[in-house]
Amino acid sequence: MPKVVDHDARREELIAATWRTIRRLGLAGTTTREIAKESGYAHGLLAYYFPDKDAILDAALDRAYTAAREELHARMAGRSGRDAVREVLLAALPIGAASVETQVLVLSWGAMVTSPTLRERRYASFREWRDTVRMLVRIAVAVGEMSAEQEPEEIADALVAVVDGLTLHGVMNPGDYPAHRLIATLDNVLDRYRSGGT
Amino acid sequence: MPKVVDHDARREELIAATWRTIRRLGLAGTTTREIAKESGYAHGLLAYYFPDKDAILDAALDRAYTAAREELHARMAGRSGRDAVREVLLAALPIGAASVETQVLVLSWGAMVTSPTLRERRYASFREWRDTVRMLVRIAVAVGEMSAEQEPEEIADALVAVVDGLTLHGVMNPGDYPAHRLIATLDNVLDRYRSGGT
Repeated sequence: MPKVVDHDARREELIAATWRTIRRLGLAGTTTREIAKESGYAHGLLAYYFPDKDAILDAALDRAYTAAREELHARMAGRSGRDAVREVLLAALPIGAASVETQVLVLSWGAMVTSPTLRERRYASFREWRDTVRMLVRIAVAVGEMSAEQEPEEIADALVAVVDGLTLHGVMNPGDYPAHRLIATLDNVLDRYRSGGT
Repeated sequence: MPKVVDHDARREELIAATWRTIRRLGLAGTTTREIAKESGYAHGLLAYYFPDKDAILDAALDRAYTAAREELHARMAGRSGRDAVREVLLAALPIGAASVETQVLVLSWGAMVTSPTLRERRYASFREWRDTVRMLVRIAVAVGEMSAEQEPEEIADALVAVVDGLTLHGVMNPGDYPAHRLIATLDNVLDRYRSGGT
């Protein structure tokens, strides 16, 4: 009887090993050789599933997005209005366990500049997230918890830009931008979009 | 008499050729071979000045920063208060001729994640820019043109985050984020930090 290999399961194992390697050695120390070692498989086998390091990081990022989406839905349960908007934005900041995933995300921003294919794929995830922010802002405006002086779409654009800018600085320089400062800056901007002025 | 080579001048020539190559072929098409061809020098000579493509892109970015700093100072002449804050922020957005430079900047964000040395160098430029924004916000608050309800440093943090987030999206997806939308979003946030509410 021929040996049956579950390719999907192996792919998952390799992706899990990738995250363990990134957490252990940092992004700069993560090579395909180290990932193979961590997974217990031969280096050649890894190449069978992923052509290069970028490809495995990309797959790892996909997995992180799926996990983040699920966590976000869990965190949103029972929230509404301004509170829901804040929660969806907070969830995207590089705070706590999420900061390793965000490093890979910022790395992919660089790669997206030179690879239109990667850009198209990643941008779809971004749009999905931005559309969630827009929808929640629209609700918060409708229930009177956020300013109706601007279009909800404009408010969402501003909030998304703030979060992406903070993400960049939180990843690049956590010393200058610790978690409490990222949250304070986000809250400061959110405050400016309260309904009825201050 | 031995031939005298002006190494600084050659370095400058190679950097200028790099920018011409990026403008002509885009970042994805820019290789050290193409840069050498554009410069008229042999590929081997390029390697004498720059160890790899990253090093020449880094040097090219340095040159762009110097040019941007000079342009900024020229644009700021005669401006003050809120107007000066807006000008310094607008100058950083990927609009018009600056958008090619900004692509290289976003690419460097990715590289900064894996290279602590590059991060330290690039971050110094960022801090310098952020300090200019802070100083101008402090003045705008002092002359009563921006809200005194927050600390100037907090306002500057928010504005810098908005600009960096907008830069990312303007570079990645100019279709979704054309210049007028970047400017409108920035102005929307600036409006929220006006003195005396709306």
